[in-house]
Amino acid sequence: MTQSRARRPGPTVRAQVLEVRGAEHVTHEDRLATEEPLEIRLAWPGAPAQRLAVTMRTPGHDFELAAGWLVHEQILPSDAIASIQYCTDVDLSEPEEFNVVTVTSTVVPDRLPQARAISSACGVCGTESIDEALRNAPAPDCELAVDLDLVRTLPDQLLASQPGFARTGGLHAAGLFDTAGNVAVVREDVGRHNAVDKVVGSRVLTGQPVPPVLVLSGRVGFELVQKAVVAGIAVVAAVGAPTSLAVDLAERAGVGLVGFTRSDRCVVYAGAGRFGV
Amino acid sequence: MTQSRARRPGPTVRAQVLEVRGAEHVTHEDRLATEEPLEIRLAWPGAPAQRLAVTMRTPGHDFELAAGWLVHEQILPSDAIASIQYCTDVDLSEPEEFNVVTVTSTVVPDRLPQARAISSACGVCGTESIDEALRNAPAPDCELAVDLDLVRTLPDQLLASQPGFARTGGLHAAGLFDTAGNVAVVREDVGRHNAVDKVVGSRVLTGQPVPPVLVLSGRVGFELVQKAVVAGIAVVAAVGAPTSLAVDLAERAGVGLVGFTRSDRCVVYAGAGRFGV
Repeated sequence: MTQSRARRPGPTVRAQVLEVRGAEHVTHEDRLATEEPLEIRLAWPGAPAQRLAVTMRTPGHDFELAAGWLVHEQILPSDAIASIQYCTDVDLSEPEEFNVVTVTSTVVPDRLPQARAISSACGVCGTESIDEALRNAPAPDCELAVDLDLVRTLPDQLLASQPGFARTGGLHAAGLFDTAGNVAVVREDVGRHNAVDKVVGSRVLTGQPVPPVLVLSGRVGFELVQKAVVAGIAVVAAVGAPTSLAVDLAERAGVGLVGFTRSDRCVVYAGAGRFGV
Repeated sequence: MTQSRARRPGPTVRAQVLEVRGAEHVTHEDRLATEEPLEIRLAWPGAPAQRLAVTMRTPGHDFELAAGWLVHEQILPSDAIASIQYCTDVDLSEPEEFNVVTVTSTVVPDRLPQARAISSACGVCGTESIDEALRNAPAPDCELAVDLDLVRTLPDQLLASQPGFARTGGLHAAGLFDTAGNVAVVREDVGRHNAVDKVVGSRVLTGQPVPPVLVLSGRVGFELVQKAVVAGIAVVAAVGAPTSLAVDLAERAGVGLVGFTRSDRCVVYAGAGRFGV
């Protein structure tokens, strides 16, 4: 439900949402944190620019992000950056230009990153990332609907199955539920994405179908909705806020996306048809 | 301050912490979410096992994590997993064995992941990850100390500089402060790690020294402490909980690490000497 954006996105974007408080349903404008991929390229003496990383980030202060990342990864010393600029390749579309930064170094890098991290970031603009996520994704069950009054009860059920969070305050959880609100599996992890991998993986390993409702203890970004889409999940209900790209992907994929899910309140960001509202 | 652990870590570990409530200082046992690297290897017909990814995760349900990740990344269809086992390489130490899983597939993978994500995960056990993080890290200023009463005021100062969070509820923030509690720079981002890259990057680009106190709006895992160590930061104060590996690294690096930082309370997890307590 996000609206069309200016060419160069700011840190937040407007969206039309449906807020439910008890029996009251109100449509109003809301603000989402912008999420877009940023590709970091590095050029050094005698070497053309090469892609080192793509991170999902909130646009703004992108040169700082690239500089800080290169130093933190110990790829460059902090005094070795000659210049940073947005990409101006003729083959890039306008939104892409502001999602690619090229750092030029005065020295040969100390090291280059290995392929060793888990991320689903891809493409250099949000639309491309969404297209890629939808490629080969299973067709969703369009008929499946869930009652919002039921959805609002699920985070409390999730919390009852979070012993690690109760002990530490430092673990996220993901849970799979059926449309009657019965819990199938809950897993905890320091990484929100790992918790989602674990709940779906538990069904993969037993050969059982993946229940249609995914409940998350925190915020919901692009990569979490992407996992849900691939797993054929129809509804994602999060305790926290969604990002702009999470909402866009959910809308395109036909996934019902609910944020700020509480017993007395929730906000529908995408796929309102899933809730019969 | 975490204690020595059993060979195969559980989802939480014990730690001795110093809790401060107003003028009261109490040392007690606490529980931390365990954070350890997991390496996922894949073997398929005609190909030996190869490393596809390393993720920082909470131990437990590791086979589910590997299975779910492979399916979510669209590397394998969900019915193609023949077996999953922990690594039994003779060259791995005992803790490492439970941080490496090898998935054997019945089919050639549909695709393999690209080197495109931002992460500082390295090594296949926490101790190795810490050794790697400390390699080439600048020597910390051992004399630098910060008053805990001052530290407890910093999250409120940070919050006053989070317009994006106020509008969306979905953005994290990082801020750099001096030892008198003066703010140098605050940045917001959907990714906590990006916010840290941005604040340090802002100093890299201007050639100014990095202020010694980093304040975080959320939880603090290994990778965030790693960035602080590389940047020469002496104190990390987080609104949320730290992970086990974040505490271990902070302790080894001489970084003062405070969690659950509130105006009336905070918990010191590592480097108590930084606070004169």
